[in-house]
Amino acid sequence: MWTLYHTWLSPFSRRVRVVLAEKKLDFDLVLERTWERRREFLALNPTGEVPLLTDGGERTLADATAICEYIEECHPDPALMGRNLLERAEVRRLVAWFDVKFNQEVSDLLLGEKALKRFKGEGEPDSRRVRAGCANIRTHLDYIGWLADRRAWLAGESFSMADIAAAAHLSAVDYLGDVPWDDHLEAKEWYARVKSRPSFRPLLSDTVPNITPALHYADLDF
Amino acid sequence: MWTLYHTWLSPFSRRVRVVLAEKKLDFDLVLERTWERRREFLALNPTGEVPLLTDGGERTLADATAICEYIEECHPDPALMGRNLLERAEVRRLVAWFDVKFNQEVSDLLLGEKALKRFKGEGEPDSRRVRAGCANIRTHLDYIGWLADRRAWLAGESFSMADIAAAAHLSAVDYLGDVPWDDHLEAKEWYARVKSRPSFRPLLSDTVPNITPALHYADLDF
Repeated sequence: MWTLYHTWLSPFSRRVRVVLAEKKLDFDLVLERTWERRREFLALNPTGEVPLLTDGGERTLADATAICEYIEECHPDPALMGRNLLERAEVRRLVAWFDVKFNQEVSDLLLGEKALKRFKGEGEPDSRRVRAGCANIRTHLDYIGWLADRRAWLAGESFSMADIAAAAHLSAVDYLGDVPWDDHLEAKEWYARVKSRPSFRPLLSDTVPNITPALHYADLDF
Repeated sequence: MWTLYHTWLSPFSRRVRVVLAEKKLDFDLVLERTWERRREFLALNPTGEVPLLTDGGERTLADATAICEYIEECHPDPALMGRNLLERAEVRRLVAWFDVKFNQEVSDLLLGEKALKRFKGEGEPDSRRVRAGCANIRTHLDYIGWLADRRAWLAGESFSMADIAAAAHLSAVDYLGDVPWDDHLEAKEWYARVKSRPSFRPLLSDTVPNITPALHYADLDF
């Protein structure tokens, strides 16, 4: 049995949760307050970060991409990394797009200021950084819309890790109510399809102490 | 025939160059001044970043990890991603360590301030950021030494993408003379082994306009 260490609104942990659910693998979810830098957790992962997936024995895996590629290699069905070599490269390009570029330009700013700072007791959000995140997300929603307009799913004809990575980031920001869906209808239509998958449901019942989710957060018909 | 777009002292481009050489694949190396945001290049890669690998036809690949995984899947010999599933997860964990953590804590600070700012004509390095990079690199060299002391190579018994990712970052910082090798002898011994590989040699003859390499930069017996 797997144990997944995660924390509130962590897009990287959310990606692993959805992948485990898509593969129909059972796991226990354990909350780790990474900012407390707990010694026992640092012994499992020297970066001190989530997600961390462990079977309690020799399999202790860190880093969302390393974990997800491992799960894919152990459990190839359903395939989440694309169906041929070029599609696999496209899936990985888009995963990096969201985990690096979207993360720096949006998640780090909005989740960092409005959620992580609160968890750590570090005071009020920096409104300049929040404004930058709210401006940047629009370009990303346009890009998602552009892709979704040309392909069945973001990386090609099948649902893939690219959709999961994108939706993992967006869902965390959406909890805060910071996704302007109604100005980006193609992206909204794509997200509605991801959101209705059974693998995505557990994310929608997450609650975070002292932060109320946006009214439409769990609504499949938002 | 492949064309690889790179720029001076880009650790991510260096990783792809070494991987192509390890796989004995020929390629043309083309310099892209990414900070000029050239329109034709943005059409190839909307992030505007290097590395970008293209065959001039339908295969145009962006992102170092996506490119390297693609090359590995097309040309499995020699294997660079580990020899079993757990070793593959460990290779990927360490690639992320260097491409995310080392990159933020060291490369972005030292290469960003001392090289990229100069290329862009943005003035003098911020000495506070340079000092932080010089302090942070010591923890990473300790970690490399700790791994190299316990394993033949960083991720296990065989030379892998983890060694290439680590050495790609270190080699770029080493060009600037900012790696305190003599205080970290296990890491130095490991780097000497990587540096002596034929795949690594082309990096050692790189020259960057207006930045003289450290005296020992190309020296295999440093």
